[in-house]
Amino acid sequence: MSEDTNPRPQTPFLDRVHSPSDMKTLSDGELKQLAHELRQETISAVSETGGHLGAGLGVVELTVALHAVFDTPKDRLIWDVGHQCYPHKIVTGRRDRIRTLRMESGLSGFTKRTESAYDPFGAGHSSTSISAALGFAVARDLGGAPDHGLGDAIAVIGDGSISAGMAYEAMNNAGHLGKRLFVILNDNEMSIAPPVGAMSSYLSQLYAGAPFQELKSAARGAVSLLPEPFREGAKRAKDMLKGMTVGGTLFEALGFSYVGPIDGHDLDQLLPVLRTVHERATGPMLIHVTTKKGKGYAPAESARDRGHATAQFNVLTGKQKKAPSNAPSYTKVFGDALVKHAAEDDKICAVTAAMPDGTGLNLMAERYPSRCFDVAIAEQHGVTFAAALAAGGMKPFCAMYSTFLQRGYDQVVHDVAVQGLPVRFAIDRAGLVGNDGATHAGSFDIAFLSNLPGFVVMAAADEAELMHMVATAAAHDSGPIAFRYPRGEGVGVDMPERGEVLEIGKGRMVQEGAKVAILSFGTRLSEVMKACESLAAKGITPTVADARFAKPLDKEMILDLASSHEALITIEEGSVGGFGSHVAQMLLEKGALDGGLKYRSMTLPDVFEDHASPKAMYEASGLNASGIEAKVLDVLGITDLASKRA
Amino acid sequence: MSEDTNPRPQTPFLDRVHSPSDMKTLSDGELKQLAHELRQETISAVSETGGHLGAGLGVVELTVALHAVFDTPKDRLIWDVGHQCYPHKIVTGRRDRIRTLRMESGLSGFTKRTESAYDPFGAGHSSTSISAALGFAVARDLGGAPDHGLGDAIAVIGDGSISAGMAYEAMNNAGHLGKRLFVILNDNEMSIAPPVGAMSSYLSQLYAGAPFQELKSAARGAVSLLPEPFREGAKRAKDMLKGMTVGGTLFEALGFSYVGPIDGHDLDQLLPVLRTVHERATGPMLIHVTTKKGKGYAPAESARDRGHATAQFNVLTGKQKKAPSNAPSYTKVFGDALVKHAAEDDKICAVTAAMPDGTGLNLMAERYPSRCFDVAIAEQHGVTFAAALAAGGMKPFCAMYSTFLQRGYDQVVHDVAVQGLPVRFAIDRAGLVGNDGATHAGSFDIAFLSNLPGFVVMAAADEAELMHMVATAAAHDSGPIAFRYPRGEGVGVDMPERGEVLEIGKGRMVQEGAKVAILSFGTRLSEVMKACESLAAKGITPTVADARFAKPLDKEMILDLASSHEALITIEEGSVGGFGSHVAQMLLEKGALDGGLKYRSMTLPDVFEDHASPKAMYEASGLNASGIEAKVLDVLGITDLASKRA
Repeated sequence: MSEDTNPRPQTPFLDRVHSPSDMKTLSDGELKQLAHELRQETISAVSETGGHLGAGLGVVELTVALHAVFDTPKDRLIWDVGHQCYPHKIVTGRRDRIRTLRMESGLSGFTKRTESAYDPFGAGHSSTSISAALGFAVARDLGGAPDHGLGDAIAVIGDGSISAGMAYEAMNNAGHLGKRLFVILNDNEMSIAPPVGAMSSYLSQLYAGAPFQELKSAARGAVSLLPEPFREGAKRAKDMLKGMTVGGTLFEALGFSYVGPIDGHDLDQLLPVLRTVHERATGPMLIHVTTKKGKGYAPAESARDRGHATAQFNVLTGKQKKAPSNAPSYTKVFGDALVKHAAEDDKICAVTAAMPDGTGLNLMAERYPSRCFDVAIAEQHGVTFAAALAAGGMKPFCAMYSTFLQRGYDQVVHDVAVQGLPVRFAIDRAGLVGNDGATHAGSFDIAFLSNLPGFVVMAAADEAELMHMVATAAAHDSGPIAFRYPRGEGVGVDMPERGEVLEIGKGRMVQEGAKVAILSFGTRLSEVMKACESLAAKGITPTVADARFAKPLDKEMILDLASSHEALITIEEGSVGGFGSHVAQMLLEKGALDGGLKYRSMTLPDVFEDHASPKAMYEASGLNASGIEAKVLDVLGITDLASKRA
Repeated sequence: MSEDTNPRPQTPFLDRVHSPSDMKTLSDGELKQLAHELRQETISAVSETGGHLGAGLGVVELTVALHAVFDTPKDRLIWDVGHQCYPHKIVTGRRDRIRTLRMESGLSGFTKRTESAYDPFGAGHSSTSISAALGFAVARDLGGAPDHGLGDAIAVIGDGSISAGMAYEAMNNAGHLGKRLFVILNDNEMSIAPPVGAMSSYLSQLYAGAPFQELKSAARGAVSLLPEPFREGAKRAKDMLKGMTVGGTLFEALGFSYVGPIDGHDLDQLLPVLRTVHERATGPMLIHVTTKKGKGYAPAESARDRGHATAQFNVLTGKQKKAPSNAPSYTKVFGDALVKHAAEDDKICAVTAAMPDGTGLNLMAERYPSRCFDVAIAEQHGVTFAAALAAGGMKPFCAMYSTFLQRGYDQVVHDVAVQGLPVRFAIDRAGLVGNDGATHAGSFDIAFLSNLPGFVVMAAADEAELMHMVATAAAHDSGPIAFRYPRGEGVGVDMPERGEVLEIGKGRMVQEGAKVAILSFGTRLSEVMKACESLAAKGITPTVADARFAKPLDKEMILDLASSHEALITIEEGSVGGFGSHVAQMLLEKGALDGGLKYRSMTLPDVFEDHASPKAMYEASGLNASGIEAKVLDVLGITDLASKRA
């Protein structure tokens, strides 16, 4: 065995579990052994694939207990977000493919309906699980009859995810409807980043015991639901009882019975509590479980992010196998640039929704903590909060992933755009994002922002352009402005000392050519240039321009390109309805296509693409050099050239 | 005076108040008289303009008290939603224009930044006020320096609005940051419809006093903030104390100090409590005020909706002056059709977010209450709840206004579209909505839905078409489907006994003509036909087609139109990036424009349009018969014809 190969763990009990029904025959002691093996198997699998490790390790015992007590897939078990579902996948018939996690054609890193009947509701974004569980519970009571019938509905949601308004909306509705429903609050004091917000403090208070020290009447709350062993006996059971009966009033106010907090790594607590609530619950029930993210694997437990996401690694040492990077990530370029501007302008401030590291705002939080706000998983609030910061004379940067900005869309329209407030949107993870798959693709932001009156929408062609756009946004104080950039590393271009303020609505010429003009919006520009190299060998030199702005369009430049070429091709990392559509609409309105100019637009295809590497996904989409070259040849009517030479 | 003219009230104190500073010199007794006059003036104004009456009448005393105690506009007073802001407008320098409410070029029916410095943050949609207030509070502490400086931030939010997740997100963040901030919970047990949800029950419990009957330690909660008269003395003060000190733990859990509930129509309670919290508060403070919607005007108090929205009316009798209707409203047509389908298929169910009447689901709620769900103001939850209902074998119709569906956009993408679940979206108030103005325009849904893979997007050309689309949606069980229709009355066409199931992705020919084809998506079709009448007189007979589907497009029909005409014009009630963009993209991809076909698309203009009548707004947008005629003449190059004949 080479030193790079991790030994596989011995898993005699796990080897017997082909589906959750196999767990029903195991004793509680055997379930503990199963949990131990499941943890080792999870570590082993992720060491080979990379992926989300810490969350899964935190719920190994919970996974075993839930499948042992409930009757999946008839009972619908819904993992919020889904990062923690790897152990669940292993025990629900997918162990043979678990080492293909997040790889092309392999298992999804999240739960996914098309993958297994044990995944009744897919996820990826947070805080949807209670809504989903309530939907299943209601469908059950209305006689909905999908495959496997409908039994109980169980949502497992983290303390980070429950900070989102959507989870509160769902609890408000569930408490009102009063249906039998289980919400497992998986409280590990850690989402991707440490959780923030009053709810988080409240939960800490609940399990710290203070100021709730008295044991109150056994008639109140959920105590009557407890099994006998917990009503008397061992000290630990008494301690549990205290917590279970004296806290949770917030959840009780919302109509839930509250049980907890209990130790989520102790099957001697989990199994009897789950069995009892399973037997006796009549309405919505919240079971507060405390766990440790990364539990049972020292390198994860000691990591700052508790092993949230990892590359492939050596199990013994915990050392990750990361490819060396050639250029700084766009995220880091943004974060660094923002700090520089913040140093010069004390009105600049920043908002993130629970993603300080992912958005690069950790740099701002370190240097200017009083001007950097992590609002928790709360994109709706975050956007409107930023709008009011702008109305209050500040210059807020609202940094969110494209896909999560969808959560705050109404606030972008209603609070920012309608009022014309100068919020700067730094949109990370724009375009295809690779192994997170369809739920995280940043495909729609060009379309859903460019149709908003008064918005400025930019995309960076490379990391130096991103610096210019940060500078432009910092300087633009007359209305909303957004700039998008992709996941991953930059192109490796020379970086300026500081960004230039760009003229709003002005693109730039990259290469003068003839016959066909390519108008790029975003980082496909490097693929365009590769295509041009190949085309040059065929005697074709396209004109190339970087649009920089989807809104306002550089009408002058685009009309010039249209009038001086036979064909015009736009390319963007977004869906139809975006940049290409706006260019088309403008050209049509000006009559610029009436004379027979051939106009084509290259966008993401109209499908939700499964996970793969971004490169593979762009290839499949035709948005790479060879796809661009083929499009140029096709529009010029010389499609045979490629095949002739091939 | 004619019997139609309401006498103006006598308002000696109000006549002296030109701005809130004029209220500072009034005694508490004079403020009571001012409140009385302000109520009469509000009733008088709305009797002439129509509009939102009940909400304003409920906050007359609160309006007086807040402006008397706080220092607006330096202190930022933010009215959630804004329906209740008419009395506020009257005392903040806009009394001279109050009888132009919601009229073209008149005052907005909501708060609006461009209208007055006393409106620091506009509204229209609910539940944004706490986020906004927190943004102002933070900006103040960071040294933001807009006009008037920055003082306190006060949000006034209803018990309906606080059910939205966004309000919870904002409280969670505010409790964490601990800034001085005031949230007035205006609890009238009534939003537009009676509020639903566990939070609503919780609030009722708070002021019912049960089960919180004991007076707890004065050291806890907000009691130390109370002024002396409230710590001892009169019975009423004692009663108040009880409520103030024993409830509100939910808000306290979120880091707020809680005071209440207090009688929001009693200035003897409001003024001292507000003065005390103003003087002593250091962190976030929630003041729970109970009021009565429609207070002080019998016809409003006794109305089912407490006078939520009204036409012009006679003040003495309360009788509204409504124009007779010629055709059923689209909302009613949808509601009736859905009930018919629900009668035949017990899997059909429906979801509304606090708008049972507005969406026509009141009819469903009456006939099939167990299958109709009002989830409260909670569009995010509502959409995902509907997705899970679909996954659970039901056939959910999710009925929302176009503008409010923006609130659930991520859920539409992530939970419905990515999973391909058959949720039926009934999108009311699509297009321009008239006197509610820019915040409520349904301009963006075609664009933000048609770019989602696998979505079916329809628009009804008239009320009979709407019936067909309800039938089509009911039958379509293979993926998400949406149909949009406007505010107001139908065209008056003959109605079928039952709707037909349309073939997905197939349009219909309306009129065969020559040279120019008009492809309509939605209810502009009637204006198209009017334009054709006028054009016929000029010897021009356009071909007219009703696209029915923006997605999937009827490619065959559209390519046929393209190849057999010199020009093609699309028209839709939506922004750029929508139907016309998708048609353009398809035609371009097929090379159908390479030969010089003249293609034009008519969309809403790229501005947020102020309130006016829908008719006036469509005229201003050029999306009416004369605008269409002009576009046809222009594209045919016979622009002179119109002027010559004119």
